[in-house]
Amino acid sequence: MASLPAGAARRLLLSLVLCLSLSAAASAATTRHHEWEISYQLKSPDCVRKLAVTINGQSPGPTIRATQGDTIVVRVNNSLLTENAAIHWHGIRQIGTPWADGTEGVTQCPILPGDTFTYTFAVDRPGTYMYHAHYGMQRSAGLYGMIVVAAAPGGPDAEPFAYDGEHDVLLNDWWHDSTYEQAAGLASVPMRWVEEPQSLLINGRGRFNCSASAAAAAEEGTCNATLAECDAPVFDVVPGKTYRFRVGSLTSLCALNFEIEGHPMTVVEADGHYVKPFVVNNLNIYSGETYSVLIKADQDPNRNYWLASNVVSRKPGTPTGTAILSYAGGRSPPPTTPPAGPAWNDTMYRFRQSEATVAHPAHVEPPPPRANRTILLLNTQNKIDGRVRWALNNVSFKLPHTPYLVAMKRGLLGAFDQRPPPETYEYQSYNIYDPPPNPNATSSDGVYRLQFGSVVDVILQNANMLDANKSETHPWHLHGHDFWVLGYGIGRFDPKVHPATYNLKDPILKNTVAVHPYGWTALRFKADNPGVWAFHCHIEAHFFMGMGIVFEEGIERVAELPGEIMGCGKTKGGRH
Amino acid sequence: MASLPAGAARRLLLSLVLCLSLSAAASAATTRHHEWEISYQLKSPDCVRKLAVTINGQSPGPTIRATQGDTIVVRVNNSLLTENAAIHWHGIRQIGTPWADGTEGVTQCPILPGDTFTYTFAVDRPGTYMYHAHYGMQRSAGLYGMIVVAAAPGGPDAEPFAYDGEHDVLLNDWWHDSTYEQAAGLASVPMRWVEEPQSLLINGRGRFNCSASAAAAAEEGTCNATLAECDAPVFDVVPGKTYRFRVGSLTSLCALNFEIEGHPMTVVEADGHYVKPFVVNNLNIYSGETYSVLIKADQDPNRNYWLASNVVSRKPGTPTGTAILSYAGGRSPPPTTPPAGPAWNDTMYRFRQSEATVAHPAHVEPPPPRANRTILLLNTQNKIDGRVRWALNNVSFKLPHTPYLVAMKRGLLGAFDQRPPPETYEYQSYNIYDPPPNPNATSSDGVYRLQFGSVVDVILQNANMLDANKSETHPWHLHGHDFWVLGYGIGRFDPKVHPATYNLKDPILKNTVAVHPYGWTALRFKADNPGVWAFHCHIEAHFFMGMGIVFEEGIERVAELPGEIMGCGKTKGGRH
Repeated sequence: MASLPAGAARRLLLSLVLCLSLSAAASAATTRHHEWEISYQLKSPDCVRKLAVTINGQSPGPTIRATQGDTIVVRVNNSLLTENAAIHWHGIRQIGTPWADGTEGVTQCPILPGDTFTYTFAVDRPGTYMYHAHYGMQRSAGLYGMIVVAAAPGGPDAEPFAYDGEHDVLLNDWWHDSTYEQAAGLASVPMRWVEEPQSLLINGRGRFNCSASAAAAAEEGTCNATLAECDAPVFDVVPGKTYRFRVGSLTSLCALNFEIEGHPMTVVEADGHYVKPFVVNNLNIYSGETYSVLIKADQDPNRNYWLASNVVSRKPGTPTGTAILSYAGGRSPPPTTPPAGPAWNDTMYRFRQSEATVAHPAHVEPPPPRANRTILLLNTQNKIDGRVRWALNNVSFKLPHTPYLVAMKRGLLGAFDQRPPPETYEYQSYNIYDPPPNPNATSSDGVYRLQFGSVVDVILQNANMLDANKSETHPWHLHGHDFWVLGYGIGRFDPKVHPATYNLKDPILKNTVAVHPYGWTALRFKADNPGVWAFHCHIEAHFFMGMGIVFEEGIERVAELPGEIMGCGKTKGGRH
Repeated sequence: MASLPAGAARRLLLSLVLCLSLSAAASAATTRHHEWEISYQLKSPDCVRKLAVTINGQSPGPTIRATQGDTIVVRVNNSLLTENAAIHWHGIRQIGTPWADGTEGVTQCPILPGDTFTYTFAVDRPGTYMYHAHYGMQRSAGLYGMIVVAAAPGGPDAEPFAYDGEHDVLLNDWWHDSTYEQAAGLASVPMRWVEEPQSLLINGRGRFNCSASAAAAAEEGTCNATLAECDAPVFDVVPGKTYRFRVGSLTSLCALNFEIEGHPMTVVEADGHYVKPFVVNNLNIYSGETYSVLIKADQDPNRNYWLASNVVSRKPGTPTGTAILSYAGGRSPPPTTPPAGPAWNDTMYRFRQSEATVAHPAHVEPPPPRANRTILLLNTQNKIDGRVRWALNNVSFKLPHTPYLVAMKRGLLGAFDQRPPPETYEYQSYNIYDPPPNPNATSSDGVYRLQFGSVVDVILQNANMLDANKSETHPWHLHGHDFWVLGYGIGRFDPKVHPATYNLKDPILKNTVAVHPYGWTALRFKADNPGVWAFHCHIEAHFFMGMGIVFEEGIERVAELPGEIMGCGKTKGGRH
């Protein structure tokens, strides 16, 4: 190497020093500031122009990258014209910051157009997380993204697996109808269902067939398959190397199956917890879940391979979502047909994958041996005033207009129904394989109030819908906690029988879990995070139609609430 | 007449007494309560399904009917999912109730989903008025309606004309793109213009041709010409009788020409003021204006006649909007082609009709002989940061996020730009027939602060747009006042010459007035209504793009502000 002039050498030295000091800073806990502007933009994620709610002009929004122990500060400026916003940090437990959970009606008032809201929270665990709007059906409009938290180097949470590089894969489904139209249809009598999505997106990109069908003709003038915006994403790999793919799903409706053609995947992480490694040809992933899988780039490097996202659990009406795994940096489509995924109605295939997901032996966090309280929730489709709704133990959830967190902390009377929702249902006599004999239900914004520090079991019992011979998969997401997944079953849960089958040895901790058709899922958590926390089906339309509940625990231990979460309902105009 | 049994006679007597006492109550000032729910509904006003913002499920909303001197109370419940709302009572001066003007950012914070806002105001003058959303571009989404105020019987404001019956005609234009898409397009670089509307509506009904064109194909599945919802409205008349048609326009874009086939119209009222009667074959009406016209049902009663609404001032790209005048109660379309209106580009035809509109001799309210202050506003299309905007004297208006009314009354610092916008422009040298030589402009939310009780002249000067040989009609609407229309001209207004030509004898009072292409309009008003008042082009896209200003007068005389107008910007969470 030729010698450098003195000036250049000095500059190089300075750069090196700067670079080293930055590296040092990155390994210590740090505060990461983000400035976000929420706005409408006309985007063509699947080649069809549609209005999207974006962050800094992008949908998905920027990936938040941090290291375990960091503090994240996101200043959200709402530049929508007439619409409010709220952003939830999915999988982040918000320990000590329950007001930053971003759940409109539960932990905060919505952010008004022109207003700024600052979310500040710690990322205390490594793993793969996500963020998304938690207001009306705004998530479906494009306001979502990924959070990647690296393990603190050398710490106890370092990954029990090795890899050479990593890629992020965020899955979604996408409609050409607006979320406003969807919500109006769902609330109509008769209900206008959202139907199957037009496209499946990978990292915000899909490909609608602009020229094929009658449906395509309907998009005339707005569909343009030559846009770079809807080019398939490409994931580059170097032959012989091992890659970690962080895969998350924020679908509004679809259960998905994700496959990397010709590359078996070793599942190593789920919802931020290390998994006892197991190999799959394809990965079932439900809305609200994240996984890390390892693949080895050991296939013929002279061609490309498909990444494929396919609908499962509902009869698919949407083409495969695709992206490209590229060995040589080329962008050309693989010479094959994209993988079609498993049979959409093979429930047991998915059930077994759920059961296979247990804690990594070196990272087992044993659950408390027994619960102080057990809540058994029957999940049914119902009708209230002619409207189709979903209910738990015949109570359909509706959000109050004053956030629970403020209403409870300040003792605001009349902000929500003080009567507790039911703990159980008539499980001895209910036939889960028939439509509800009496589909009537009631609406309530009542809350399950938990004793602080107590251990709570929840069993989610699936059942037949209003139509005969129909039961769907519901991915349930708990805010503010991870829970142990104690067991799954198909059929009716029997409190006298099934608890004996629980996995108390190495259950995985998760924040989102599937309840399979006609099945049940049992989970356990410790009510040790002061705050108010939503627990709901992560299908956007289902939560909108009442499939959720709310827990309160230790509200008296919550520190002084920041004023910026207020301003609506009974906290309007400083009346709190 | 046969004698009645005693019981029946008593009931009849009771009915008569009740009836008489109701009549007596109706002639005295009364308070009229309305309970409104704002919600999204899938409607097909022109046979094409589209999401509309509705009042009690309807678009247009219910007509408010009252008698001069009544108090109107409207409780607005916002049941939109994620979107706020605000409703302006167009033409109602809100004397003593400036907080009820319903102008988001000027007089109130928006009404949040789940919140209720009560508008209470007096209708002190008889006439034809309107209401509509005044928030973002929400008016275009369907939130609008009519207010009809009868003259107090026997009072000084009784109509100087007679008629046998009356009909209401509310005109609008309608797009299949949502207002969110429209607004996003307008704010884009490059701008995506809203283009011409798909339909013209009469009382909320139009008729899109579902089977004719490529554009129609794009509506496949949502266009249904057999829906009763998009049947043409029918106006029944009895041969030989005289009818008052109250005609209002709340178009988002279009200048319209309204005609009743074969029935010349006598113009008798404009914006709530009696007009020196004049006869027209068709009526030019601009967004924000109302007129009453009289017609005699003196044509062949064996057939029906068209009501027709046609685009003028812009090259039409929208079919004639139609309704049916029915002599015999029949609903069949007239045997003729609907009137096509005058040549769209005959500016002078419209100019002359504007000039013909002067006060009724018995109802002249003479203007003050001279002004204390004259504001000369050059209306130009500009570019700011690459975005197309409109500006007055090179200042493009932007709404603040704290309502002026609260910010000024409470002295909230930093809520808006304290620098006053310019009073005039370089009129000696500016060539209004050329595009702006320097299209750059600045944005501001500065305010014109008026001395209370002073007389203010405003001259609105139109000019060429960014494209050569193009100047449009702008209907300007003033909140909180009626103004005298002192004169119109084509060409450049000269402050040394044109004031001498003002009509000080019998100028009409109006709240909305047209500024014709390449023309000017001079108006005068008294700043005697304590409050903060918007003054802006009533074209929804133009106000959105900055074509407006704000006046303050007598803020110190405004009574204590109701808390419900607060809750946003610097009034969030009780920080006021």
